[in-house]
Amino acid sequence: MDEFDIIARYFAPLATMPGAFSLKDDAAAIPAWPGFDLIVTTDQIAEGTDFFKHDPPASIAKKALRVNLSDLAAKGAKPCCYLLAIALPQGVTQEWLADFAAGLADDQARYDVSLLGGDTSATEGPLAVTATAFGHIPQGRMLKRGGAKPGDAVYVTGTIGDSGGGLALLKHEKDALAQAQCDYLIARYRIPEPPVDLGPLLLGLASASVDVSDGLIGDLGHVADASRIKIEIDAAAIPRSAALKAFWGEGPDALIRAASAGDDYQIAFTADPLQDGKIQAAAAQAGVTVTRIGMVGAGKGVVLGYRGSVLAIPKPGYRHF
Amino acid sequence: MDEFDIIARYFAPLATMPGAFSLKDDAAAIPAWPGFDLIVTTDQIAEGTDFFKHDPPASIAKKALRVNLSDLAAKGAKPCCYLLAIALPQGVTQEWLADFAAGLADDQARYDVSLLGGDTSATEGPLAVTATAFGHIPQGRMLKRGGAKPGDAVYVTGTIGDSGGGLALLKHEKDALAQAQCDYLIARYRIPEPPVDLGPLLLGLASASVDVSDGLIGDLGHVADASRIKIEIDAAAIPRSAALKAFWGEGPDALIRAASAGDDYQIAFTADPLQDGKIQAAAAQAGVTVTRIGMVGAGKGVVLGYRGSVLAIPKPGYRHF
Repeated sequence: MDEFDIIARYFAPLATMPGAFSLKDDAAAIPAWPGFDLIVTTDQIAEGTDFFKHDPPASIAKKALRVNLSDLAAKGAKPCCYLLAIALPQGVTQEWLADFAAGLADDQARYDVSLLGGDTSATEGPLAVTATAFGHIPQGRMLKRGGAKPGDAVYVTGTIGDSGGGLALLKHEKDALAQAQCDYLIARYRIPEPPVDLGPLLLGLASASVDVSDGLIGDLGHVADASRIKIEIDAAAIPRSAALKAFWGEGPDALIRAASAGDDYQIAFTADPLQDGKIQAAAAQAGVTVTRIGMVGAGKGVVLGYRGSVLAIPKPGYRHF
Repeated sequence: MDEFDIIARYFAPLATMPGAFSLKDDAAAIPAWPGFDLIVTTDQIAEGTDFFKHDPPASIAKKALRVNLSDLAAKGAKPCCYLLAIALPQGVTQEWLADFAAGLADDQARYDVSLLGGDTSATEGPLAVTATAFGHIPQGRMLKRGGAKPGDAVYVTGTIGDSGGGLALLKHEKDALAQAQCDYLIARYRIPEPPVDLGPLLLGLASASVDVSDGLIGDLGHVADASRIKIEIDAAAIPRSAALKAFWGEGPDALIRAASAGDDYQIAFTADPLQDGKIQAAAAQAGVTVTRIGMVGAGKGVVLGYRGSVLAIPKPGYRHF
């Protein structure tokens, strides 16, 4: 089957918006929402970096989409649709494609988004998937990395470091963990769970916000840079799952590992501490946890405090090069 | 240098729109234009398929952008901005990146577009570039593949087959051509010249339109399918450059090669023949040539006529698989 057959069979059924033209045209159309900005983000995931060759196709599909939904959530946007550019290596089977498309269909239902368009091609290299996601926000209200002010509290959603633990397990860096805990951590690496419903609820509450994708410390460093402030994190307050605690243990090394591992796809944000009640109410409404982990002060950079001392951070986050 | 340095040094200077936030945030914002649809398209290009490893980086950059601008032009949209997701293989040098960015800067000036955002990562495979381009069209007016009616004339812009000739030269399928003609054809393969200025002028004139990227016959086949009509092409009328004529010669085989080679990035469209004068005026305004090559009739598929007989078409266009 050629790319037209693949698109018609596996992807066109996912393209339910009128402006997608059933993936039968050269481009798609997004109607203007007067008074709203269209928020746009693109992230690619590649075999060997973001997933492994034999990962379930549905999980690869979900990760490709969710890493983008995570960016939208961190900016306060409600997602509406996405583009998918996929470069397929030789030997991809119909079963693989069907499972990949089923993963997208699952997530479309879960997040109320629709495929808008894309590009399917062949590659001599490993599988690569580039998704571009779109969402809406009232004009000029996008949450930015800049905007944190001294006196603000620092929050993070969900738990941090699980995905890094899962990756370490998949690389067999350390074993000896109960099967259920292994499964949990590996699932967090393969299929992130960005707090998509929380994002829009943070408009008017958060002063700055960032998607935690390259490591909590590194991404908060972007907030510190953009806001020209200093962020002081209480390392012991960083939320970690029971599985991660069982895997990496307690103590400063384990906390630094969690706070510098990538692929969390949570949101870290700052807010006036007077908003704490509203923030917790928003978290409850969105069905996620939000943990207060630190404070914003004057100065620059990110400091990780632990029992009254400051931890040295060897590598704040993931770098591609 | 890591990806943050690469983005700051080479890509941020290209991101001049306010909504790009100097590439320093998680996402970009496109303001709504009330009364206009945002037209979106994405196309990836990959080493070994769309370009060669040692092609000039500036030409790779331009091709990545222009294959997308071509889709927008075919839909009648004026481009405004683009996203760029790039997966860099090991060993990419600063010189390479500087030349790549210079190619984008050239085209930004030429087409009045700006970088809106993107993603930079490393790959274990060959270089891959995915661009996503945006443009505007008055609401509901996008030119589609459907819409051609019996009695319409069929037009194509520029010359057809040059890029296929350039690719054959690069693959050394046939040589023996004057150097200037070789250079011309190879340049057409490396750097397409989509009729970007013509696109918006076709609104209200064209009844159906398609980007010629996989081969003229194949792409007109999409128009025939979507419009549920038959397209009859006069093969002898297909516009070919002097260089391509010198390379592939005359006669039906040479015409079929031109009409089934990919990578033209011209526009093929249909229109009421009474609009012919306005179409030629629009072409003159846009500084491109438009050639009438056939007619729309009742039926289905694409027929290539030549001196009173019908040519058999072995392969109507490029397929990835």
